[in-house]
Amino acid sequence: MKDIQSQYDGRGIEIDKVGVSDLRYPIAVLDRKSQHQKTVARLAISVMLPHEFKGTHMSRFIEVLNSYRDELTVRTIPLLLRELQRRLNAEAAHIDVKFPYFMEKSAPVTGAQALMDYDCCFSAEINGGALDFVVAVQVPVTTLCPCSKAISEYGAHNQRGYVAIKIRSKKDGDGLPQFVWLEELIELAESSASCQVYPLLKRADERHVTMRAYENPAFVEDVVREVAAKLKEDHRIEWFEVHVRNEESIHNHSAFATVEWSRPITHENMMHQDIEVKLDA
Amino acid sequence: MKDIQSQYDGRGIEIDKVGVSDLRYPIAVLDRKSQHQKTVARLAISVMLPHEFKGTHMSRFIEVLNSYRDELTVRTIPLLLRELQRRLNAEAAHIDVKFPYFMEKSAPVTGAQALMDYDCCFSAEINGGALDFVVAVQVPVTTLCPCSKAISEYGAHNQRGYVAIKIRSKKDGDGLPQFVWLEELIELAESSASCQVYPLLKRADERHVTMRAYENPAFVEDVVREVAAKLKEDHRIEWFEVHVRNEESIHNHSAFATVEWSRPITHENMMHQDIEVKLDA
Amino acid sequence: MKDIQSQYDGRGIEIDKVGVSDLRYPIAVLDRKSQHQKTVARLAISVMLPHEFKGTHMSRFIEVLNSYRDELTVRTIPLLLRELQRRLNAEAAHIDVKFPYFMEKSAPVTGAQALMDYDCCFSAEINGGALDFVVAVQVPVTTLCPCSKAISEYGAHNQRGYVAIKIRSKKDGDGLPQFVWLEELIELAESSASCQVYPLLKRADERHVTMRAYENPAFVEDVVREVAAKLKEDHRIEWFEVHVRNEESIHNHSAFATVEWSRPITHENMMHQDIEVKLDA
Amino acid sequence: MKDIQSQYDGRGIEIDKVGVSDLRYPIAVLDRKSQHQKTVARLAISVMLPHEFKGTHMSRFIEVLNSYRDELTVRTIPLLLRELQRRLNAEAAHIDVKFPYFMEKSAPVTGAQALMDYDCCFSAEINGGALDFVVAVQVPVTTLCPCSKAISEYGAHNQRGYVAIKIRSKKDGDGLPQFVWLEELIELAESSASCQVYPLLKRADERHVTMRAYENPAFVEDVVREVAAKLKEDHRIEWFEVHVRNEESIHNHSAFATVEWSRPITHENMMHQDIEVKLDA
Repeated sequence: MKDIQSQYDGRGIEIDKVGVSDLRYPIAVLDRKSQHQKTVARLAISVMLPHEFKGTHMSRFIEVLNSYRDELTVRTIPLLLRELQRRLNAEAAHIDVKFPYFMEKSAPVTGAQALMDYDCCFSAEINGGALDFVVAVQVPVTTLCPCSKAISEYGAHNQRGYVAIKIRSKKDGDGLPQFVWLEELIELAESSASCQVYPLLKRADERHVTMRAYENPAFVEDVVREVAAKLKEDHRIEWFEVHVRNEESIHNHSAFATVEWSRPITHENMMHQDIEVKLDA
Repeated sequence: MKDIQSQYDGRGIEIDKVGVSDLRYPIAVLDRKSQHQKTVARLAISVMLPHEFKGTHMSRFIEVLNSYRDELTVRTIPLLLRELQRRLNAEAAHIDVKFPYFMEKSAPVTGAQALMDYDCCFSAEINGGALDFVVAVQVPVTTLCPCSKAISEYGAHNQRGYVAIKIRSKKDGDGLPQFVWLEELIELAESSASCQVYPLLKRADERHVTMRAYENPAFVEDVVREVAAKLKEDHRIEWFEVHVRNEESIHNHSAFATVEWSRPITHENMMHQDIEVKLDA
Repeated sequence: MKDIQSQYDGRGIEIDKVGVSDLRYPIAVLDRKSQHQKTVARLAISVMLPHEFKGTHMSRFIEVLNSYRDELTVRTIPLLLRELQRRLNAEAAHIDVKFPYFMEKSAPVTGAQALMDYDCCFSAEINGGALDFVVAVQVPVTTLCPCSKAISEYGAHNQRGYVAIKIRSKKDGDGLPQFVWLEELIELAESSASCQVYPLLKRADERHVTMRAYENPAFVEDVVREVAAKLKEDHRIEWFEVHVRNEESIHNHSAFATVEWSRPITHENMMHQDIEVKLDA
Repeated sequence: MKDIQSQYDGRGIEIDKVGVSDLRYPIAVLDRKSQHQKTVARLAISVMLPHEFKGTHMSRFIEVLNSYRDELTVRTIPLLLRELQRRLNAEAAHIDVKFPYFMEKSAPVTGAQALMDYDCCFSAEINGGALDFVVAVQVPVTTLCPCSKAISEYGAHNQRGYVAIKIRSKKDGDGLPQFVWLEELIELAESSASCQVYPLLKRADERHVTMRAYENPAFVEDVVREVAAKLKEDHRIEWFEVHVRNEESIHNHSAFATVEWSRPITHENMMHQDIEVKLDA
């Protein structure tokens, strides 16, 4: 049978990314508490296509993904990308893995336990020998409006907000990003709002979170700054983007704030930038 | 060219609805204040297909819709359905029209004005000569938790909630549903929660809505009952379904409550039930 | 602390359903091939609330769900509903569990294997002693237009379609619904369109599915009838609703068809209708 | 009343964007054929916040938007951004306006007319005196797989695809982007796939589009290259990103390809880059 994809293309246009998207697959990710956690991901997987080839071979993306579904993490994604480079004969390969992640949370007074869901994402690219790896979490929180509290005799409007954090961490001597647990980013976000959000609250807990939020009013501006300040202090992190969105309880729209930041380049943190990633597979 | 759709089908299965869906179209609806309002709808349009025909003629749905886009309301939808019956030779025809609807709202203290959006829907069916017409609105509101207020020394969690109302109104002597403005249902919902939601609030307004919500705590159960009680008192309405959903500010899930109700049948309200709809077109 | 929820309500309005929704939780369901499958569900859980009570106790829904997350299936859902009835002192309890379900599929020629995703749902209600249980699947398929094929000299437009099936099965002597595997409904849908859809196809497979679809043209009307005819022949099934939707490749909207059907009541299948469900817990 | 937002903030963190999002508003945009077109937009509007201020004044975004809703286009958006800079005392201001846009399309043989919907977006930023303006369209098309056609004896799988184009155009002497009609970008995309998609097709039209797609097979790679090649030839355009996604009819996932490009900088096209935007308001 003809291999149309491998034919020559004369238009002279290199394609940055070509591959599959909107793909749903069960995967396992690392879990700080119980080692592995099974979840269901939405994926996009692609490669760069040189200008002289007509097309890529889409079925190979699925074959490679299928072989990695038992663990898809910062440890194995570089290997998966290397395999895509090799099997598709590509200079660069990319993957986005979006998944809900669950943590057991205890209510603040009674300790009642249940699971809380967080949207997370790994976005990684290998280009030649250089690896880029972005970890993202989206964390629901409670925010209580400082203005509303200050100008009212009683009460204060509050609502659910979402803190979205994306980070790049520094590379170690092997060109691999330093490990940051999803749990660390989640806890950092949860400690930066008026109050945490919980899956299960008994009455004593509800009293606690109500009063705690009232004691800690925070605008979206405050939350985004709190998160940013904490991320700057974590020297593993060299780049971040924080986006906070409040689903305002007094409006039918949201309020949002966003901050992007890169650690200023010093001699020390430049050293590992261009190191080729070393993988044992 | 062959007309495959008109061929005989021997499987003996009548199709309840066949037609087009996920269709987006600009339409105009009636507006209590300014006569007509232009908006963008999502539509599904269908007919019943007798068991002996292989298929329907999909292009005719678009042709008929296109001819009614200048007004798509309780006044014209029966005519549109009649035309579908006729052109597709069908016993029954159906339409669902979902659209955002806008009302100018004034802030409660300063009177500052802006537009507020509401999701609305008309669902209508003609079956032989009988018309069924459901009007639906979804209204954002603020709800403040009575339990949280009662057990806490200060503050109370509150959040955005959505009140969804669907109604059928009584038929008049022509078999047409009595007219109920979208605005009437929206105002009924807005007056049944802890506070209304506004597009634009200056500081004096924010103080007002904060305190007003604190003075009027309401569970989803309370809101659904308030709305239900008011709808029962409106004698134009013979059936309703109310669904209230709070996007809880202390959880990452919602709380909801729903009530469905039909006006008990009396001699008087039975009289017009089976009347064939009379349309002048 | 006050128990506001247990206070008396004088409005005289019973609430059909009150509970939690938009809840995401990891669950395990039964898998014909490998016993259990872990997935992530979206849930709504609720009870009926008598008119005299002001509110329900929302935290108990989460507690009960959390205790059943290791298996949430036709075997355990009746027990979960019973526990909700008991713990919330409710006449009726309801649950909706929506989840992606995965099956390993082999390509038709090369046998290359990968996982395919299907949206599934269990909707169950217990009312007094009577159990209602609806199983739903949504299955992607290929459909090729018979009209387009018949009137064109070459080619025929085809597209992805979705076959959604909901069923109620007959009750056995214990008042429990007869077991029907999700896999059975999925395979029934896949065999009723122009061709199946696959997660992984090599070139020889692509040739096969292309020609197979061309040999089996089917309108939405054909697919909905094929599925309906097969479901009627399965005597375990006493009610179904089939909805087929084609994401037309020549339009920016869908074509759809839907059929609902109940098995005519005979003496034999009436016998178990009103049996109280018997559960050993 | 206290103005909490204007208080001093000591954390030293400038906020890139703070404002409102998820806002729905009726707007009017320019229409090549009939001057103005009314539609419904989703908006995000924001400003940069210097590190020393605690918060921004959210209500002003709504006030400014409300005053521009009668025309929100490349002509008026710079004025709106200027007003935000002034009223919020901000160095930079930004807006995203997403809206469905409708064009009347004639079927290729019968000429039957109806409206076709396209998702469009304006994203603009003013930073000091420099304006950045991105126009985006998303255009549904038909794609027919060249590999499937080449290896099969008859038929070829085809499906709906979406071509998303984002452009920046060159600035004129006033620092304003050269005008490019949405219609131009839409037509460019529609002419680059296997066939256009239509809202209304009679049988003779369906025969035409079926055969036309079969005669013009195109991978996502081909479509993205066709679009890119045409955009490069339009000298008004200095930057683009093209994303093509096929909702594969033989899989339950999509295939996609993306190309980003900037016109190489020459003396001539550099001249107007840093010009301050000149507005008469």
